[in-house]
Amino acid sequence: MNIDRINAAHARISGAIRRTPLLSAPLLDEIAGRRVLVKPECLQLTGSFKFRGGMSAVSALPQELRARGVIAFSSGNHAQGVALAARRFGVPAVIIMPSDAPQMKIANTRAYGAEVVLYDRGREDRDELGARLSSERGLILIRPFDEPEVIAGQGTCGLEIAEQAAELGIAEAEVLVCCGGGGLTSGIALALEAKAPGLRARPVEPEGYDDTARSLRSGTRERNRSEAGGLCDAILTPSPGQLTFPIMNRLCGPGLVVSEDDALRAMALTFAHLKLVAEPGGAVALAAALFHGTELAGDTVICTISGGNVDPQVFARALERGPG
Amino acid sequence: MNIDRINAAHARISGAIRRTPLLSAPLLDEIAGRRVLVKPECLQLTGSFKFRGGMSAVSALPQELRARGVIAFSSGNHAQGVALAARRFGVPAVIIMPSDAPQMKIANTRAYGAEVVLYDRGREDRDELGARLSSERGLILIRPFDEPEVIAGQGTCGLEIAEQAAELGIAEAEVLVCCGGGGLTSGIALALEAKAPGLRARPVEPEGYDDTARSLRSGTRERNRSEAGGLCDAILTPSPGQLTFPIMNRLCGPGLVVSEDDALRAMALTFAHLKLVAEPGGAVALAAALFHGTELAGDTVICTISGGNVDPQVFARALERGPG
Repeated sequence: MNIDRINAAHARISGAIRRTPLLSAPLLDEIAGRRVLVKPECLQLTGSFKFRGGMSAVSALPQELRARGVIAFSSGNHAQGVALAARRFGVPAVIIMPSDAPQMKIANTRAYGAEVVLYDRGREDRDELGARLSSERGLILIRPFDEPEVIAGQGTCGLEIAEQAAELGIAEAEVLVCCGGGGLTSGIALALEAKAPGLRARPVEPEGYDDTARSLRSGTRERNRSEAGGLCDAILTPSPGQLTFPIMNRLCGPGLVVSEDDALRAMALTFAHLKLVAEPGGAVALAAALFHGTELAGDTVICTISGGNVDPQVFARALERGPG
Repeated sequence: MNIDRINAAHARISGAIRRTPLLSAPLLDEIAGRRVLVKPECLQLTGSFKFRGGMSAVSALPQELRARGVIAFSSGNHAQGVALAARRFGVPAVIIMPSDAPQMKIANTRAYGAEVVLYDRGREDRDELGARLSSERGLILIRPFDEPEVIAGQGTCGLEIAEQAAELGIAEAEVLVCCGGGGLTSGIALALEAKAPGLRARPVEPEGYDDTARSLRSGTRERNRSEAGGLCDAILTPSPGQLTFPIMNRLCGPGLVVSEDDALRAMALTFAHLKLVAEPGGAVALAAALFHGTELAGDTVICTISGGNVDPQVFARALERGPG
């Protein structure tokens, strides 16, 4: 993995993806005590950065393979990203989703034209189900993060951050990234290394699912103790990826860990001051910027809002919780 | 009023305002039965387009007048726009707001550093209060829409729409604008006349407050029957402006009228598919695009989301109502 692959992904997908803006709000700066710039990937098509990786991977397939169709496992954001990417190329997509995934994610994945196969997390073996479907139908598996073309696609978000920071005259800043398997974090880290070496990526995770933060401390891939669900469903992966971890280990600053309550408060502040819908897992980086300022360096922090695919009930809970 | 004044406003304020993107979502196109492009002014600083007009008017004042400070009447969006504009120039702002304005709007106006003076809609005379404060302190009144520099500032939104439509190769479309006093609608209409003559502005209002639609039909300024409050507080004005109406009458297509329920449904769809927070008055144009398609011409419609300053309780009501 290197910058050339990210540049190549950018050349393939830049006409299809949205270049998300870099936003700010004076009242968030006051809360954080420094300048806060937000990269709202909730405004990306399909409501999360995952469309970048989905488009990158599907567009990189040789045409004869792509025509067979694609398959993916996902609790929802990768599902929608791959589903819309497949639709853009007019090829079938089968998405295997846990039956307890957020309803909006299941409904939207179907609305993008994918065949959704639900499985019971507790009783069925997802990998076996996927292997059977993919061999029966000859579908190509698009992994959610441990896949070079997916990492390259997510890296296009880092290219944009590098450009937008330069436009604002920002040469040094920490870049907080909502982190599950590390596809977005490692992609952004690689892009920043090449294009904005004064910007440093730092992964942010929810309490109890801090596998990446612990892995960066120990230098080896650690696993989460729990695999139970949590509010931040989008970023609950058992451990950092085989491909993503070495990149993060080489390039990232220490991981940050926030509580679910911090994520809800950040969602309420995103509603109030940015007029954006963040999902819990997509709000952890902003939560770190706002509520963990003592762990940050510099007078400017850039943070991703990685997605906004949240069920209304959960969003209402964040509004009720409020920012205080 | 003409395009030169809008261009001049753009030159003064373009470094301070946000150039909002033009967004879309495949699933909204399906609902509307045509391509829907959204201009999300909820992403403007202060959460509504009013910051454009506020910056334009405050920046146009001669320095010695500006230094005395400014005063504005507003239920909330103009309040915030003028408050932040005054802060950017380091001059005082006094904002007269009804005591039943949305709490978020009052709180944010104060947070931008303005002195908020609340009055009782039923018992106090707003104009008298404003005249007294302004003469006592020598403050300069910034009118919410019937003020050339405010119209010129709102017109910069139209300049952006013209440019963004051209980038997408769109030469003909209807441009739906959430309409209160007509500052945004007339500003956009003037900008489109000069820069994108195939694009036509059409005002959208809530049922019961369709003064502009009726005025466009009769050719003379009509008044709303009710002045009671409503869900769409941002766009409830008694009648179109003296300056704005002749512009709208010359340039706009027929007005559209949607129900409050349509506005709530559009808010729920904005949440689901655009990941944006729209306030009820800011959602009426999208509501017209989605639910009043038979009243529209062409295969593409562009609509403003004029603001997102909504209290959590009202937003929760839209989520509960849902899009169906």
